[in-house]
Amino acid sequence: MSNFGFRHLRLVNPYEVAFREARSAVKAGAILQSAAEFKTLAEAVADCALVVGTTAAAKRELHHPLRRLEYAGRLLRKALAAGPVALLFGSEKFGLGNDDLAYCHWLLRIPAREEHGSMNLGQSVAVCLYELIRVARVPTPEPRKRPTSEDLERLTELLREVLERSGYVQATSTEAKVRRLVRRLDLNAHDAEIWIGMFRQILWKLGRTPSSTPW
Amino acid sequence: MSNFGFRHLRLVNPYEVAFREARSAVKAGAILQSAAEFKTLAEAVADCALVVGTTAAAKRELHHPLRRLEYAGRLLRKALAAGPVALLFGSEKFGLGNDDLAYCHWLLRIPAREEHGSMNLGQSVAVCLYELIRVARVPTPEPRKRPTSEDLERLTELLREVLERSGYVQATSTEAKVRRLVRRLDLNAHDAEIWIGMFRQILWKLGRTPSSTPW
Repeated sequence: MSNFGFRHLRLVNPYEVAFREARSAVKAGAILQSAAEFKTLAEAVADCALVVGTTAAAKRELHHPLRRLEYAGRLLRKALAAGPVALLFGSEKFGLGNDDLAYCHWLLRIPAREEHGSMNLGQSVAVCLYELIRVARVPTPEPRKRPTSEDLERLTELLREVLERSGYVQATSTEAKVRRLVRRLDLNAHDAEIWIGMFRQILWKLGRTPSSTPW
Repeated sequence: MSNFGFRHLRLVNPYEVAFREARSAVKAGAILQSAAEFKTLAEAVADCALVVGTTAAAKRELHHPLRRLEYAGRLLRKALAAGPVALLFGSEKFGLGNDDLAYCHWLLRIPAREEHGSMNLGQSVAVCLYELIRVARVPTPEPRKRPTSEDLERLTELLREVLERSGYVQATSTEAKVRRLVRRLDLNAHDAEIWIGMFRQILWKLGRTPSSTPW
């Protein structure tokens, strides 16, 4: 991160021992000291307008668009011009789980061999960040204002309640499904607001105000 | 190396302990087992038509052309098509010395920040090899089945009815607005079906709710 000029490290439930040890990393001390820790992924990406997950899975059953790093880099650079973007890496051992992936708008894959797609975490990060800085500043097209993850969570929650209320779903096991569905809409900030307003109205009409969360 | 399909590892005076330990690297066993050891750099690169050294030095007094990785990658790919090429990395601690650099035709530099140009060895190798394979294949855009206009119209109509029914809109003048909103979602065919099913269910439920609007 420090090599390539990225400064905002966020950690979700870090393993404290390893994390504290890592604070000794040469010249990267400032990044580690200012790293923010979060209990949940939802909180960690709340203010991000775009959340992109990394995966080694070339063929795994994915519910998201999967993009090669070269192409993903172009999209990420564009999005970075418009607002905060989260690039999500899983743990060294297990990578990102399906619950994590549900918070992503889309996924990227480093074009490693299919026979050996799983990469070392530090190397993955280095390769991805290199791709982001590789091209000298390109003229940026007009930035598109994107909703924050928090907005999308609100929409997700509203839709989930509407569906539950209308008998479309009962089980909360579908929460990740609804979350992915909303992420795939790839809404702009303005439309996200409209959809939130619509579902709030629908929910109200269905006879229940959002109970658990005071929006 | 294994991730990106490079198989010929050559080591000059490796530190045996670390090297033997590394043999456990997941899925990269074959590369480590077939790694060739040499007493001197001269022997290690003897059969190579091009030898390129890596350096973090942005400004150090260099006696070689220094190329940024992006450009170097192009030259290396060309050379690889003609014969064996050596990409030279120094030790984690000291990098390549002047004696090593003397064997190089030219040098490359990963475009890290000048203030923090020195990179972790494994990460440097990953980034360089990624650059070499990056353009090998053309990125394939994922084929994406799109909904027909008819599907989108059905969804538009359902949404419009839901909104009317829930009191979000009264006037039919907003039909074009709703239509555009649905188009902007840019749904794939599968998701379009899901949304149609959801709104059908919501509409059905709204129909059974006592409503202020006479239907």
